[in-house]
Amino acid sequence: MHLNATLTSIGRIETPFASPGDCPRNGRALDPAPLCRVHVDPAFQPGLQGIDGFSHLILVYWLHLAETPDLVFTPPFDARPRGVFATRSPRRPNPIGLSVVAFEGMEAPGVLKVRYLDCVDGTPLIDIKPYLRTTDAEPEAAMGWLGARPEGKNPAA
Amino acid sequence: MHLNATLTSIGRIETPFASPGDCPRNGRALDPAPLCRVHVDPAFQPGLQGIDGFSHLILVYWLHLAETPDLVFTPPFDARPRGVFATRSPRRPNPIGLSVVAFEGMEAPGVLKVRYLDCVDGTPLIDIKPYLRTTDAEPEAAMGWLGARPEGKNPAA
Repeated sequence: MHLNATLTSIGRIETPFASPGDCPRNGRALDPAPLCRVHVDPAFQPGLQGIDGFSHLILVYWLHLAETPDLVFTPPFDARPRGVFATRSPRRPNPIGLSVVAFEGMEAPGVLKVRYLDCVDGTPLIDIKPYLRTTDAEPEAAMGWLGARPEGKNPAA
Repeated sequence: MHLNATLTSIGRIETPFASPGDCPRNGRALDPAPLCRVHVDPAFQPGLQGIDGFSHLILVYWLHLAETPDLVFTPPFDARPRGVFATRSPRRPNPIGLSVVAFEGMEAPGVLKVRYLDCVDGTPLIDIKPYLRTTDAEPEAAMGWLGARPEGKNPAA
């Protein structure tokens, strides 16, 4: 069912990753994590009021370069097929990406400095939400089939 | 800028909250948190393969009953205006909701048992992502203006 839903780009994301092939497996795969920037369009900049003091944000963005959805596939580092909802693959029915990022303050009006992104440069921004440890942090969460893998560095499908 | 982006409903969310006015302030405000259900449409159910074993999920949904966006407003429990991107208000430029939920297994094919939702019954589901503690958990995150409030029970704007 198609929703009567039109998404509006509220800005764009600047990363060092020029193409999907350049993107790391997840936003914490690179050490040190590179500085990225979120450019919020002027019309939406009033919505940033009060964002200072949050150490982390949730960015929601449109994976505009994602290939067609793939409901079931075998991840490159796995031996068995997995459903897309058990992975963070960009090839989702709705190509919406989400990252928990470290927020390092404003570089200029409407320009946020962040780390831990893995999306391509120029990705359209859909939303910024404050990260709330009281509802968003589950440090003991079990990671299903990903948790069963050898404890690598920040595995993420 | 409007994106060339059509969202597809992949299912719907069942909660005990019949109208927006019945919804708690956040998904952890009720103790005990009520059982909710995620009904995934048959066409998308293959995408659930391998979801067992994840203790927590991130649900992304369309806030179809949200009022018009409000970029700056004074939260009901606050004395100062805040930008919407510093709150979890549903009145966002793109009314996309997001909750970290506890996943308690399948009740039937395509029906997930979850807790910690605060959205209205019948909310259209957009995406299910596995929660990864390695990239999503920030238990020490500072909560900006929300953190400065008296330490209430799971504050969330």
